[in-house]
Amino acid sequence: MLLPRPTSLTIGEGVFELTRTARIAAPGELFGAAAWLQGALRPATGFPLESGSDGVIALEWNPQLPAEGYTLDVEPGGVRIAGGGPAGVFYGCQSLLQLFPPEIYRRGRVVGVPWTLPVVSIQDAPRFGWRGVMLDVARHFMPKHDLLRFIDLMAMHRLNTLHLHLTDDQGWRVEIARYPRLTEVGSWRRESQLGAASYSRGDSRPHGGFYTQDDLREIVGYAMDRAINVVPEIESPGHTQAAIAAYPELGLGGDDEPLGVWTRWGIDDNVINLEESTVEFFTNVLDEVMEIFPSPFIGVGGDECPKNRWRLDERTQRRKEELGLETEEELQAWFIRRLDDHLYRHGRRLFGWEEILEGGLGSSVSEGATVASWRGTAGAIAAARAGHDVVSCPDDRVYLDYRQSDRADEPIPVGTVLTISDVYRFEPVPPELTPEEAGHVLGGQGNIWTEHMDSPRTVDYFAFPRLCALAEALWLEGERDYDEFTGRLDQHLARLDALGVEYRRSSGPLPWQQRPGVTGRPLTPQQRAAYFEPLTARIDR
Amino acid sequence: MLLPRPTSLTIGEGVFELTRTARIAAPGELFGAAAWLQGALRPATGFPLESGSDGVIALEWNPQLPAEGYTLDVEPGGVRIAGGGPAGVFYGCQSLLQLFPPEIYRRGRVVGVPWTLPVVSIQDAPRFGWRGVMLDVARHFMPKHDLLRFIDLMAMHRLNTLHLHLTDDQGWRVEIARYPRLTEVGSWRRESQLGAASYSRGDSRPHGGFYTQDDLREIVGYAMDRAINVVPEIESPGHTQAAIAAYPELGLGGDDEPLGVWTRWGIDDNVINLEESTVEFFTNVLDEVMEIFPSPFIGVGGDECPKNRWRLDERTQRRKEELGLETEEELQAWFIRRLDDHLYRHGRRLFGWEEILEGGLGSSVSEGATVASWRGTAGAIAAARAGHDVVSCPDDRVYLDYRQSDRADEPIPVGTVLTISDVYRFEPVPPELTPEEAGHVLGGQGNIWTEHMDSPRTVDYFAFPRLCALAEALWLEGERDYDEFTGRLDQHLARLDALGVEYRRSSGPLPWQQRPGVTGRPLTPQQRAAYFEPLTARIDR
Repeated sequence: MLLPRPTSLTIGEGVFELTRTARIAAPGELFGAAAWLQGALRPATGFPLESGSDGVIALEWNPQLPAEGYTLDVEPGGVRIAGGGPAGVFYGCQSLLQLFPPEIYRRGRVVGVPWTLPVVSIQDAPRFGWRGVMLDVARHFMPKHDLLRFIDLMAMHRLNTLHLHLTDDQGWRVEIARYPRLTEVGSWRRESQLGAASYSRGDSRPHGGFYTQDDLREIVGYAMDRAINVVPEIESPGHTQAAIAAYPELGLGGDDEPLGVWTRWGIDDNVINLEESTVEFFTNVLDEVMEIFPSPFIGVGGDECPKNRWRLDERTQRRKEELGLETEEELQAWFIRRLDDHLYRHGRRLFGWEEILEGGLGSSVSEGATVASWRGTAGAIAAARAGHDVVSCPDDRVYLDYRQSDRADEPIPVGTVLTISDVYRFEPVPPELTPEEAGHVLGGQGNIWTEHMDSPRTVDYFAFPRLCALAEALWLEGERDYDEFTGRLDQHLARLDALGVEYRRSSGPLPWQQRPGVTGRPLTPQQRAAYFEPLTARIDR
Repeated sequence: MLLPRPTSLTIGEGVFELTRTARIAAPGELFGAAAWLQGALRPATGFPLESGSDGVIALEWNPQLPAEGYTLDVEPGGVRIAGGGPAGVFYGCQSLLQLFPPEIYRRGRVVGVPWTLPVVSIQDAPRFGWRGVMLDVARHFMPKHDLLRFIDLMAMHRLNTLHLHLTDDQGWRVEIARYPRLTEVGSWRRESQLGAASYSRGDSRPHGGFYTQDDLREIVGYAMDRAINVVPEIESPGHTQAAIAAYPELGLGGDDEPLGVWTRWGIDDNVINLEESTVEFFTNVLDEVMEIFPSPFIGVGGDECPKNRWRLDERTQRRKEELGLETEEELQAWFIRRLDDHLYRHGRRLFGWEEILEGGLGSSVSEGATVASWRGTAGAIAAARAGHDVVSCPDDRVYLDYRQSDRADEPIPVGTVLTISDVYRFEPVPPELTPEEAGHVLGGQGNIWTEHMDSPRTVDYFAFPRLCALAEALWLEGERDYDEFTGRLDQHLARLDALGVEYRRSSGPLPWQQRPGVTGRPLTPQQRAAYFEPLTARIDR
């Protein structure tokens, strides 16, 4: 019935029928949730839900519940939702919506559907406090209104963290007042690589877009109204070519043409230099980012920074000596620590990919620094043991750009096969951890890298329904039963249909969801392991 | 200030400030507009607007006003909107929104903006009853949620008619229960022509999508809540290749491979046959369409049907004799008349392109049949003189796929140059008409053909801000002053910015709005006239 499945649900006798004379009642502090619920129920029902007296949907606080916990009681005479905090009340409202027929999700009047709810009693609270999605809006820009829709879809699944990957080699998507060229130059590229092979050609089509600071404030506020925290991410020291294209002084220079925004996919050799002026540039950027995003966590990236250019660059070698460092890994760690110092002084927590555990950094960044562990579980284990909080997002469980089956018609297939069932079995806490270490695992997130998703329609295809499975994996305490889940998922797909979500059908991609002739880069589990093992070996343990 | 400009607006002294303790008050019948206004004002302000008493926004009926007319009075102590009908009240609410700072259009809390309105008195009513947009969702499908957004943008501009071009050679976008292959087969094509030249290559990428009947009911209801009527269009007898691909028995047959959904742009020789079974097929389709769309007008197309295949086809020639007809134009007229009979019997009015005036049809279709006049004004003049209602949409004034300037960097430039100023000067009533004949001109519409708009982002670029100019041309009675308009347009663009509309900048296309290397087909006015003149000469006068 509900998805994610609630902690407990008891069905009673009878039904509650929502009618024109019903009303939503809430104390002033819960106006936000009440307004959301009105807005959600009105379009399909056509009911005002404002001043009737016939059936009351009452929203209330219950300070004895956890902040994200709620109870939902449907009786023939009325509905009561109590939450431990605004998020809990909001989730109670989301669950209420799922008790109605799926037509409730339509945004125009639906006639002939009885708006009845079964009598139920629900107690519910999530297992993890970080139930997230990383969305890469750098590789392909997602227009603001599409992003707001994506936030709605997250909220429907009681996900609470949107990790917004705002910058990368292929695009810089956040307006920075002090450095206007970041968006003037960095927000678009001449073309995009079509496919995932080294020989894949370009598509000859410019791509671009960016969010103004006002746009981002709006996104943050919209998400906050839906109990979602937006964690911004500004990548460095790798994945920075778009910034270098805008401000060449950030780069290593050289004899070549000035760098443009990158038009290829993959790991880019063009990384920033580590001069003091570059540190200052990034801390200045982070200052504006902190102005926009109230998130306690601020992402700095830190992943996949190739060190070979640093090794060959004289200025960087001098810098290394000057700083008394011995390896390029230490140099990277030094840079990340500078960002960490800056964020810490501003009361924020650094959020970075597991590579920030290399070069002795794990033991020297501030205690609050938090690690996104992505190449299997090695990073999660190392970070938790070093006393750092962890967000688990192992590629082979929750990288939603990985192919959804081994069919040949999957569009631009990359990575290993990652089915709904694989995602559903995702366990954020590695079994190697002691209970105390496990306490450092804040939760998990699915990562949506968009190299091969050039429109919101394609994001729909890759994200759903796997994101439904992920949401339940992060929400539900205790055993999960995949067979039982699939029954609820079938019902849930009717909700996604009503919302116009172009999810992947269990029968495979629809003809227009396919990309015939565009080469992917599928991996076997063995190939994947062979690639990652030497890399994760670099993590300090 | 407002766009479209209202009939009269008087600014007084002082301001009204919307606060947390304000309230929207409306009688039950106006709940729809009140709910819309709450939903529009709440996100940015964060105000409940439900039960306060400090400043009331009162919505009321005023039966002395025309149905779409309204008055809007802002006093320091409160706001009063009176409308002649639901549409009038709704337009009063839309105009109220425009009196606020543009940040009101943000969907997340905006802090630091005073929500003040100038004291004003506005009387307003539209000149025309048909203020429309034709959107071609056949050449490129627009996902439902994007279409709902487009409806919101229309409503903001007080446009009231969405002519939805649902079927064409390149795609069939409406689910028909009786003929499931129309969407199974007809809703997608193997690839799309990239550019407008005869030698333009295909893009090798499948394209598709369709609306379920529930989706369309939702779209209709959503539009209705915003005072917009949706006029569906099912093309015939030309522009039918997607239908023939699904049901080859509709076509003329021949020795070739079975037809697929067309992957080229232009005028297609593959038209339907005119057997009784084909008439029945289309009337059956129209029966389902009438079930979904309450619109008094039902579009049947009728444009650009090449007759050469009919001339060469033995069966069609026999059919012509059997029916006692002499020309292929008469044959087409006969087919359209059959559809007209059917619609008439169901209490609907046929809506067709001006080609339905060929072959003696103008004098034989039912009186209510209405003509969309598109190749200049010849069709409008002929139709009005024949006593038929007319919707003016001359290509050289309101075809929003035509290039916006003569710059070389306009994306896939087609047609003649059509600037904002050209659209602004659009006059739906040809000067040749007598006042009585002019009474047949219901209004006008802008046509958005999407051959070269493969995403909602591109539709934004072509539609805006020209659609703003069109909305005013159709709304405003009396003289229009382009210079004065441009001042208001500048203010209005801040509203579009807040909404994330990717309109064309006056400085030209942004880099990522360009399509370098993709060939268009620009025309000079002379080339255009030379193409159309022999065609419009066929219209019966």
